[in-house]
Amino acid sequence: MKMGITLEQAETAVKAAKQKAQELGLKMNIAVVDAGANLTAFARMDGAWLGSLDISIRKAKTARFFDMPTGELGKLSQPGGPLFNIEHSNNGLITFPGGIPILSGGEVIGAIGVSGSTVEDDHTVAQAGIDAVA
Amino acid sequence: MKMGITLEQAETAVKAAKQKAQELGLKMNIAVVDAGANLTAFARMDGAWLGSLDISIRKAKTARFFDMPTGELGKLSQPGGPLFNIEHSNNGLITFPGGIPILSGGEVIGAIGVSGSTVEDDHTVAQAGIDAVA
Amino acid sequence: MKMGITLEQAETAVKAAKQKAQELGLKMNIAVVDAGANLTAFARMDGAWLGSLDISIRKAKTARFFDMPTGELGKLSQPGGPLFNIEHSNNGLITFPGGIPILSGGEVIGAIGVSGSTVEDDHTVAQAGIDAVA
Amino acid sequence: MKMGITLEQAETAVKAAKQKAQELGLKMNIAVVDAGANLTAFARMDGAWLGSLDISIRKAKTARFFDMPTGELGKLSQPGGPLFNIEHSNNGLITFPGGIPILSGGEVIGAIGVSGSTVEDDHTVAQAGIDAVA
Repeated sequence: MKMGITLEQAETAVKAAKQKAQELGLKMNIAVVDAGANLTAFARMDGAWLGSLDISIRKAKTARFFDMPTGELGKLSQPGGPLFNIEHSNNGLITFPGGIPILSGGEVIGAIGVSGSTVEDDHTVAQAGIDAVA
Repeated sequence: MKMGITLEQAETAVKAAKQKAQELGLKMNIAVVDAGANLTAFARMDGAWLGSLDISIRKAKTARFFDMPTGELGKLSQPGGPLFNIEHSNNGLITFPGGIPILSGGEVIGAIGVSGSTVEDDHTVAQAGIDAVA
Repeated sequence: MKMGITLEQAETAVKAAKQKAQELGLKMNIAVVDAGANLTAFARMDGAWLGSLDISIRKAKTARFFDMPTGELGKLSQPGGPLFNIEHSNNGLITFPGGIPILSGGEVIGAIGVSGSTVEDDHTVAQAGIDAVA
Repeated sequence: MKMGITLEQAETAVKAAKQKAQELGLKMNIAVVDAGANLTAFARMDGAWLGSLDISIRKAKTARFFDMPTGELGKLSQPGGPLFNIEHSNNGLITFPGGIPILSGGEVIGAIGVSGSTVEDDHTVAQAGIDAVA
């Protein structure tokens, strides 16, 4: 059955995120997952941090797992918070900014995850991907 | 430092493999890794088998881990063969056809892995990706 | 293709770290990875903590994954920090001191990771390895 | 407590194996584990297969896990054999030649694992490491 985002949409999001990263002089890992949280499109820019590859994919999955930006989940997973250490679930979540759900007609059809710079930059580049498919 | 294949080359390979799959009426998962066996570009065509996502990435990694087409390794890992059950190493190898190293100037700079149809089709589509960056 | 540090350089780093540990009366696990974060040379000194074996390798990998000393990453991954719980990525990071990237000509060619004593000692012994190949 | 082989013995074995590999024009991954099957010394020769890193360590561990050469275990793990698919245990065994226990005074004090060429070459190079500490 259909699992939300199409490859064409996913590649549009990756391309837009890549262009935004280039404008900002950043080297990013960019991942898009579908509504089933399965990797659909991915690009690692030349020279991007090796460790950010895995993080970008986990951010995209985390955003889809809970249908919210990863940074929002991170506010709840701090010591003393209601979801403290939720990162241990699902074989490892990433809960700082850079993952954002992708919506269409009010439904979550997938998510994008970006990693390679500060969390603010990661989020900005992810948002550029979102805007391209909105 | 430089890790072999560039993102531009990797995306060229993915695009060519995708076009070949479309010509043949197939739905494929297509993965390209760099010389360090790190995922560099990926595309999952709409409706491709979910289980083939992981297989395509493992095929690309396997081809780079041993610098040979995955099907060649599979000939050696059969019962009674010299490398029986090598698949248990490296967190899981895939040793049937569909993974091929990418060379440049006689050096392996990465590999492509394709999964979603028969192993013959998988290999044919992977080869189309190779040809595009040769 | 070439993956950064050579085995000769890696063994030089391990030997220097081992000598520094002996001077300080410490028992260390010492790991060096290449630019692809692949283990290149390793030594576990007699009687070193068993649990430090894995930590030394993860420290070296972490330092290469993000091209910074592990202790720097640890400052960012504290509760309330921008990278809280980044340790859940990449199959487990170690973000306290003892891992340091190895540079050559301004490029990261690998990293060293040391574990077996206090984090200050670990870092000191890792630095001795770095100095030997600088 | 003492865990069998010393680092000095382990490094002697690695060095001898490395020299044998160089004589034969081979690029090997060489691992030595102690009596507790913990990695004690390791060397990856420049340009050795990436996928052989993991295999060399698993061969050394497998040889110590059952106190026999890995190839002997492989004879028993074939289809129809008494230990069919024993490779699934212990987080992944490697049961083709290249792993050999290291004995001292009739006791197993560790093991060596070599990977990077044919299984015959792997075994030959591993034996050179054994001979150096016998």
